[in-house]
Amino acid sequence: MKKIQIIGVGLIGGSFAKDLRILFPKAEIMGIDSNPGHIKEAIALGVIDNEGSITALQDADVVVLTIPVDVATQVLPEVLGNIGADTIVLDMGSTKAAICASVATHPKRRNFMACHPIAGTEFSGPSAAIEGLYTGKTNIICEVEKTAFKLQEKALEIFKKLDMRIRYMEPQAHDRHIAYMSHLSHISAFMLGKTVIDKEKNERDIFDMAGSGFESTVRLAKSNPVTWTSIFAQNKENILETLEEYIANLEHFKGLMESDNFEGVFQEMQDTNHIKEILKGIN
Amino acid sequence: MKKIQIIGVGLIGGSFAKDLRILFPKAEIMGIDSNPGHIKEAIALGVIDNEGSITALQDADVVVLTIPVDVATQVLPEVLGNIGADTIVLDMGSTKAAICASVATHPKRRNFMACHPIAGTEFSGPSAAIEGLYTGKTNIICEVEKTAFKLQEKALEIFKKLDMRIRYMEPQAHDRHIAYMSHLSHISAFMLGKTVIDKEKNERDIFDMAGSGFESTVRLAKSNPVTWTSIFAQNKENILETLEEYIANLEHFKGLMESDNFEGVFQEMQDTNHIKEILKGIN
Repeated sequence: MKKIQIIGVGLIGGSFAKDLRILFPKAEIMGIDSNPGHIKEAIALGVIDNEGSITALQDADVVVLTIPVDVATQVLPEVLGNIGADTIVLDMGSTKAAICASVATHPKRRNFMACHPIAGTEFSGPSAAIEGLYTGKTNIICEVEKTAFKLQEKALEIFKKLDMRIRYMEPQAHDRHIAYMSHLSHISAFMLGKTVIDKEKNERDIFDMAGSGFESTVRLAKSNPVTWTSIFAQNKENILETLEEYIANLEHFKGLMESDNFEGVFQEMQDTNHIKEILKGIN
Repeated sequence: MKKIQIIGVGLIGGSFAKDLRILFPKAEIMGIDSNPGHIKEAIALGVIDNEGSITALQDADVVVLTIPVDVATQVLPEVLGNIGADTIVLDMGSTKAAICASVATHPKRRNFMACHPIAGTEFSGPSAAIEGLYTGKTNIICEVEKTAFKLQEKALEIFKKLDMRIRYMEPQAHDRHIAYMSHLSHISAFMLGKTVIDKEKNERDIFDMAGSGFESTVRLAKSNPVTWTSIFAQNKENILETLEEYIANLEHFKGLMESDNFEGVFQEMQDTNHIKEILKGIN
């Protein structure tokens, strides 16, 4: 491993760069970002060594695409057009159908592997990059059969060294399930934050009343709006379905309370309570 | 401090007992619980020393009431009827209007202090009790003027030793604000858990896709349904108001997505994003 190019030097790309630095201490890690400030910051923080260019990817061993998913579908075909024969391009976006479609007929399709590592924090930018973010996490790989076998091996070797758990999935199935497992949580948190802020905007010291429960539930509302707008746009149909069901469940719960059916309220919570067991084993 | 009585030896009461044990190593800590198994478990764990009785509270220095809020309003008048002249009774429930009303005209009202420490975890029972749960947390005290001055001092001394931050509030204001800052988060988490479980019940390995974001947002759905049913019943009107606003915000967000107004979607998130700053300082 001699040269690595990270396109999008934020939380996701920067953290991956930090892990690659440890795995391949001799490799040169270059960064590409539409925000020149991010490049400066990433170099200063030692996340990357130098600035790269999207037109000079021929000698890269690995190119990692970690930019908002709407931009990724435009940039990926260009990236594939500029790489060498043995370059593997990984994308790490939170949606997979559109990115796979964007290069379905590209002559270099076999140099691309569509990934979604289930890892992140609510922070963003190069300063949010942390070592070990990916260690032990799940990595969902889509359309693995469309990636050249030797390049699959190269990528899987990296994921293995990071102790990642690999799951193979079709892009459409990925997007449908991830709408429930991740995208809905973000909307639920953003709207919880909005509801509370709207109500309490004139009484800011009321936030003294917030405990760790509120903080946990609303945490994802700190996430980057640019990143998440592009995800919501790309996974619109699946997310609308989850939102409809979530709202229906809230309406039902409200109806039980309104009719003083607190046995029903209890049963609703009791039925969901086994999420304890389901979640055991996550982190 | 010679004798302490904890009524309800679960997460809240048990954790407080553990802290009192450190502050007053010579005091005898007794426990009362409707579940005999909890008493045995709490003694085995060293959370309490012996079983107490609700009819033998005369010589207690402090009585702490940490039982579901619907039972608390029935038990508190009886407790006040059985205490000595210098006993201070603290309740730690998550609603404050009903408990204050239940003893408004009680001859021993001045022996009672209505508290709500903003502390807890999603676990329950004596084994969930942890040392230091209250350290540095906010404690909301209602109708402080109705507690005898000397007994206020006794209680505040304990809270000071636990480094708690005291906020004084009227019970109605407490219940209105806490509906936003805590109760709504619980419903949002329970219904998120329900939505995802309902959808994915036939594909349990899909939960491999859950990351720390989902886990954080749904965490409160692990909470005790008995505790929370009683809170929702007692704070019904305030909670229904928060639920209405939360659902309206979700419907609005859904409408923006349906009409492909992703600038609007972005703005919604951008406007809520400063919750980062608001939450700074909450553990």
